[in-house]
Amino acid sequence: MLKPRWSDLDAYNHVNNVTWLEYLQEARVDMLFVHAPTRGAEGLASGVLVVRAEIDYRRTMHFRQEPYPIEMWVSKIGGASFTISYEIADDDADGTRRVYGQASTVLAPVDPVSGRPRRLNAIERAVLSRFVD
Amino acid sequence: MLKPRWSDLDAYNHVNNVTWLEYLQEARVDMLFVHAPTRGAEGLASGVLVVRAEIDYRRTMHFRQEPYPIEMWVSKIGGASFTISYEIADDDADGTRRVYGQASTVLAPVDPVSGRPRRLNAIERAVLSRFVD
Amino acid sequence: MLKPRWSDLDAYNHVNNVTWLEYLQEARVDMLFVHAPTRGAEGLASGVLVVRAEIDYRRTMHFRQEPYPIEMWVSKIGGASFTISYEIADDDADGTRRVYGQASTVLAPVDPVSGRPRRLNAIERAVLSRFVD
Amino acid sequence: MLKPRWSDLDAYNHVNNVTWLEYLQEARVDMLFVHAPTRGAEGLASGVLVVRAEIDYRRTMHFRQEPYPIEMWVSKIGGASFTISYEIADDDADGTRRVYGQASTVLAPVDPVSGRPRRLNAIERAVLSRFVD
Repeated sequence: MLKPRWSDLDAYNHVNNVTWLEYLQEARVDMLFVHAPTRGAEGLASGVLVVRAEIDYRRTMHFRQEPYPIEMWVSKIGGASFTISYEIADDDADGTRRVYGQASTVLAPVDPVSGRPRRLNAIERAVLSRFVD
Repeated sequence: MLKPRWSDLDAYNHVNNVTWLEYLQEARVDMLFVHAPTRGAEGLASGVLVVRAEIDYRRTMHFRQEPYPIEMWVSKIGGASFTISYEIADDDADGTRRVYGQASTVLAPVDPVSGRPRRLNAIERAVLSRFVD
Repeated sequence: MLKPRWSDLDAYNHVNNVTWLEYLQEARVDMLFVHAPTRGAEGLASGVLVVRAEIDYRRTMHFRQEPYPIEMWVSKIGGASFTISYEIADDDADGTRRVYGQASTVLAPVDPVSGRPRRLNAIERAVLSRFVD
Repeated sequence: MLKPRWSDLDAYNHVNNVTWLEYLQEARVDMLFVHAPTRGAEGLASGVLVVRAEIDYRRTMHFRQEPYPIEMWVSKIGGASFTISYEIADDDADGTRRVYGQASTVLAPVDPVSGRPRRLNAIERAVLSRFVD
């Protein structure tokens, strides 16, 4: 759920395509920093690099009062990276689903001191697996 | 060529992953709004939607005085869309190339009044083909 | 009420001083675009320029889940401009008030077509006077 | 000198009023981090809080290729704070000066570890005094 800011609009009066990536980041931070149990998985909050991002834009988003719902799930857990997938969509009152876009980001944990990539540990894998679909 | 701003940094002291997409946008705007001959191709400046973006992040970018060089070329011209590819990289004095990342964005021209997708016209295709590497 | 985004943080891990002005803008947009009765006062939403801003920063704001409360009132109504004042503050459970900062912005209505300054009309003055504290 | 980005534009197609404060920040960072002699004055780069900002907006700024010139000088040196003043203006070919706005920011050095305000030391005062106009 992310409420657009007026400042997210560009000169075309749309939520700018760049800002979409910010929305995904906010949703992910919320999941990794707040809702993921922190015991043993603090590293997911303190040191994760984005190594790949892809977004398919389907409809333009506008400034509005209702937050845009963002669904998010872990779609892949590798040895030293994991993938989060996202869908931004409204469920209209009549049951139709209005998809604004889909996206995914590949994330790699890094050692917070050296900045070097590292493998996911067992606790992190367990935490992430709870977010698989 | 894009000079980082201090405000591009996030709490990790890196150019934030979201801002990379802003860098691509600025490079593209420069090409489509300024350097593309405008005669007959004004539509590329006034009405183009991003329909897909993908970025591979290789190295972190930092705040520095020298602009980051961004190479950019048209990698595909379709009937109603075209793709711009990007590489952000330094060429070091000793001849090694330091790649920060690669990206591409699929862009679709739209009618500026209706906002509806439309086909590329002949002049636009000619203009774009000059940027095919 | 404004929920900070992780992307509002700067390299010092604070909500950046620039972003404060964005928070004021969002609060103001909310008042002028949404909560002000629109009948006859649409001009306050569609064409208002900021002509002066001042902010006193008292405490740093951080990334947190609870939105920061922003109080806002019309502190002056002139012939061709009006002033909105703001206070960002928490009321702690023990009754103490924790003030993050105070600010004001002078706003001038402009003709949306010509962009020229114009006088406030009677309806706009009536709408604004309801926000005088 | 600050080159506008297309992303600095808001839905009115102006450089947004919030972004002006970002321009001042970039100009200041350039002075304090880069051009100020660092010997003994490193604290001006690593730990300075903005305690007050004020901006007078005179003309709207737009997206353009030429950077906007920003003049900047130290207008006050206090015991535990200093003030930087700014003017954003073009000097037109015919000699007329086109002022976009004026601003000032009061800055306070803080201890980088404790975050507490501290007094300016003698070297910092000497460095700042060279920027007094």
